Amino acid sequence: MKKHILVIPGDGIGPEVTTWGKAVLEEIAAQYNHEFTFDEALMGHAGIEATGNPLPDETLEKAKASDAILFGAIGHIKYDNDPSAKVRPEQGLLKIRKELGLYANLRPIMLFDELLDASSLKPEVLRGTDILFFRELTGDVYFGEKTRSEDRNTASDLMIYHRYEVERIAKKAFEAAQVRGKRLCSVDKANVLESSRLWREVVQELAKQYPDVETEHMFIDNAAMQLVKNPKKFDVVLTANLFGDILTDEASQIAGSMGMLASASIGDGTGFFEPIHGSAHDIAGQDKANPLASILSVALMLEISFGLKDEAKKITDAIDKTLKDGYRTGDIADANTDKAKILGTQAMGQKVLEYLKG
Amino acid sequence: MKKHILVIPGDGIGPEVTTWGKAVLEEIAAQYNHEFTFDEALMGHAGIEATGNPLPDETLEKAKASDAILFGAIGHIKYDNDPSAKVRPEQGLLKIRKELGLYANLRPIMLFDELLDASSLKPEVLRGTDILFFRELTGDVYFGEKTRSEDRNTASDLMIYHRYEVERIAKKAFEAAQVRGKRLCSVDKANVLESSRLWREVVQELAKQYPDVETEHMFIDNAAMQLVKNPKKFDVVLTANLFGDILTDEASQIAGSMGMLASASIGDGTGFFEPIHGSAHDIAGQDKANPLASILSVALMLEISFGLKDEAKKITDAIDKTLKDGYRTGDIADANTDKAKILGTQAMGQKVLEYLKG
Ligand SMILES: CC(C)[C@H](C(=O)O)[C@@H](O)C(=O)O
Ligand SMILES: CC(C)[C@H](C(=O)O)[C@@H](O)C(=O)O
Repeated sequence: MKKHILVIPGDGIGPEVTTWGKAVLEEIAAQYNHEFTFDEALMGHAGIEATGNPLPDETLEKAKASDAILFGAIGHIKYDNDPSAKVRPEQGLLKIRKELGLYANLRPIMLFDELLDASSLKPEVLRGTDILFFRELTGDVYFGEKTRSEDRNTASDLMIYHRYEVERIAKKAFEAAQVRGKRLCSVDKANVLESSRLWREVVQELAKQYPDVETEHMFIDNAAMQLVKNPKKFDVVLTANLFGDILTDEASQIAGSMGMLASASIGDGTGFFEPIHGSAHDIAGQDKANPLASILSVALMLEISFGLKDEAKKITDAIDKTLKDGYRTGDIADANTDKAKILGTQAMGQKVLEYLKG
Repeated sequence: MKKHILVIPGDGIGPEVTTWGKAVLEEIAAQYNHEFTFDEALMGHAGIEATGNPLPDETLEKAKASDAILFGAIGHIKYDNDPSAKVRPEQGLLKIRKELGLYANLRPIMLFDELLDASSLKPEVLRGTDILFFRELTGDVYFGEKTRSEDRNTASDLMIYHRYEVERIAKKAFEAAQVRGKRLCSVDKANVLESSRLWREVVQELAKQYPDVETEHMFIDNAAMQLVKNPKKFDVVLTANLFGDILTDEASQIAGSMGMLASASIGDGTGFFEPIHGSAHDIAGQDKANPLASILSVALMLEISFGLKDEAKKITDAIDKTLKDGYRTGDIADANTDKAKILGTQAMGQKVLEYLKG
């Protein structure tokens, strides 16, 4: 198979972790006789520094011309503490999601048995959890009109949804539920929000076309609670952009660490694959970041964009073995971890490559 | 002390639990020679059934004339599954919050040692947690303009904040932090939302007036994660209406159950005290609800609205003893609970009264 992949390292720990995602792609290409070609482009703070633009035109062109995109992370503390900044790294990510029509963000909560103890949740609460989130990614209060009054004393963001936006992602979620546990939980705040009421209407209507899927509606506050209380009860979770942002970060603690979670953004064209963790500037450049989420993003890319299931499984198996043999990055180490087996980013990436080869 | 208290039982399990909140108030009045008089009023589904209005005029008048309000719960499954309903129980609660100017919702996360094992979180993660949430309660996307297009295919809610709204609740939160752990964490989504950027600006400015308080800003997605990962790191958490709704429900799992959490809504006039749990129609009328959140709401009322600290402590001590002696409602029972000590709503309320009486 011939594929052209664009790597966008982005900010903070992004470059450190995408290095290993790319290395794994190269190894898979060699083993399975695929021809993967690569290009690289800037986004976020890196884009601003080089061109003044968080999504340089060249990056967008390259993105559209590629078969899949491997992304690192975005954001910089400099802007976080400057609420009046006009140009912000995150604008790059939001814009590329919109431009590529990446309306569905899939976030599988993968649970490696070896990491049961790394979570703050009790192992008996976690065991058996297997959730696939469908987060809407190009609508909601993220993209609605923003205003600031002239005296700067009033600010607003419009939370808005159109029927077709809810329909297209809901369909994808229902289809996924059909080939998984046949349960779908749609999360909204329909007791307060009109946009949520539209959301619920659409999901209720669509549910009739999927009689084999058991559909449930849950308020976001309750869902945030149930996710900690009893994560096993969820199969497919379908939700809006903002609620999905919050719930999936919360759910990362089920997997022990944000450093273990990958996501796939799909829609009209090229697929976009990224860890759900952020740029983590506090540990950037220190060889401390966990490269597994980037490597798992590559597994998602192979499976979802290229249909290469065996290759994807080969990668998750290699990670499985790495963890079984006791290797950990700092974020997933616990009191029982053999200190000698706590690895930096480089050594962890190398380990996975070894298991992949061998 | 002479005080007039309005009891609004509301919907679902509301009436069952407020009965015990009121009984405890009566017991306290008798013991400390206070004169508490009571009235009752309708709200929510109960209000709609009786008058067609989720907040009958009479209820609002009585509320304004009282010294404090004890509220039960709101909501009905009938409306939850009918996104097109025009009149909804929740409108009653939102309207009374607005009419009484209840802009600050205080939600303390109380941790009873005896319940450490009832949580899905590990005891070592929980132990020592002590968080006080300040949730803004009369602004945000809850009260911004709602629209639905004529073809019903587009729906929106305006997320909006004014400077003074952020200022007044932030001040209360800073003041609370000064007499607590001297740490304040303000939660927003300033990397995406303009209303959050205003929020952050205001909090940053105010922070200068409270140099003794260590102020931190956190994105909502990260906060939802940190709350599960390491709840101990929080002292006072200050946040907007929607984010506060989500975070405090999530945080209820720290206390083992929603059934253990009370809240105080304060502002311009009469204080409003309610459990953070909902109407729980699935268990309503079955003598299964946990009355402790309502009883704890009464403790908050005595302390915050009436300045009666000893009386408040007497109540939390009685609950402490009840739990120490092994009594539990179903929601806080665990595998080690003596089955004979799992009580219904009535028996649990009675037990607390017994311990109160000494
Ligand atoms: C960086 C930020 C804009 C982004 C989001 O909120 O969507 C991130 O938190 C994510 O979840 O991908
Ligand atoms: C019932 C609902 C409107 C309410 C809210 O969202 O504020 C409830 O969830 C709460 O937290 O008090």
